[in-house]
Amino acid sequence: MKNQKLTHNKQKPAWRSPCPIARALDIVGDKWTLLVVRDLVLGKQTYTELQSSPEKIPTNILADRLRRLEQHGLLKKRRYQAHPPRYSYHLTPKGQALGDALHEIVEWGLRYIPGSSTAGTKE
Amino acid sequence: MKNQKLTHNKQKPAWRSPCPIARALDIVGDKWTLLVVRDLVLGKQTYTELQSSPEKIPTNILADRLRRLEQHGLLKKRRYQAHPPRYSYHLTPKGQALGDALHEIVEWGLRYIPGSSTAGTKE
Repeated sequence: MKNQKLTHNKQKPAWRSPCPIARALDIVGDKWTLLVVRDLVLGKQTYTELQSSPEKIPTNILADRLRRLEQHGLLKKRRYQAHPPRYSYHLTPKGQALGDALHEIVEWGLRYIPGSSTAGTKE
Repeated sequence: MKNQKLTHNKQKPAWRSPCPIARALDIVGDKWTLLVVRDLVLGKQTYTELQSSPEKIPTNILADRLRRLEQHGLLKKRRYQAHPPRYSYHLTPKGQALGDALHEIVEWGLRYIPGSSTAGTKE
C-alpha cells in the first residue's frame, strides 16, 4: 500500500480503488481541474482566456492542470501559431463527456448554495 | 484578493466566485470528500464503517471531512451511545442531492476509465 501514492506526472496513475468516483477524483479531485473543464466547455481555448476566469487560477496551476488533462486524454492541444509557439486547448469526447456530467453539479450548487449563479461565468 | 483564501473551519467560506461549480468545489473539491458522500449514500453510518472503504482514508482526513460536511449542512451526526460517546453520520437532503449528482460521474468513470468498476465498493 505504501507505493500507492498518486503520481500524476507519470503515464499510469496508481488508482486508489476500482470505484469510478475514486478514479475520477484521482484525475480531477482538486479545486481547479473541473473549472478548467468548465471553461473549455464554455468555449475558452487559449491560455489567456483560461486565465481570465473570475476564480483567477494561478498560472503554474493552470499549466499543470492542462498537462494532466492532456495526459489523461481529456483534452488535446493544437499549435495555432509557430513563432512563438502558441497552443489552443480542446476537449476530447472523454473531456466533453465529463463536462456534460457537471450539469448535475451545477444544478446542485444553484439549488443548495446560496448566492451561486451562472451569470458572469463567461466574463 | 489576498484574503480570499478558503477558511473551511469558519462558518462562512470565502467563495472564489458565484459559479455553482466553483462553490461546490469550495466544499467538496478534494480527493476524499466525495468518497465520504458516496459511502454515506451506500448506507455506511459509523466512523468504523467509513474507515473500512478500499481507499483507506486516513483517520485525520476522515474526521476533518465529516466536520466540514456537517458545517456545510450536508450531514448530521447522531449520538447513538453515551458512554463513551459514539456518533453515526447521516446525509441531509442537501447531502443526498449531491450524492444523486454523483451518478453522472459514476457513468463517466465506468465508460472512460479502464478498469473502473462498482463491484466491491461496499466491501
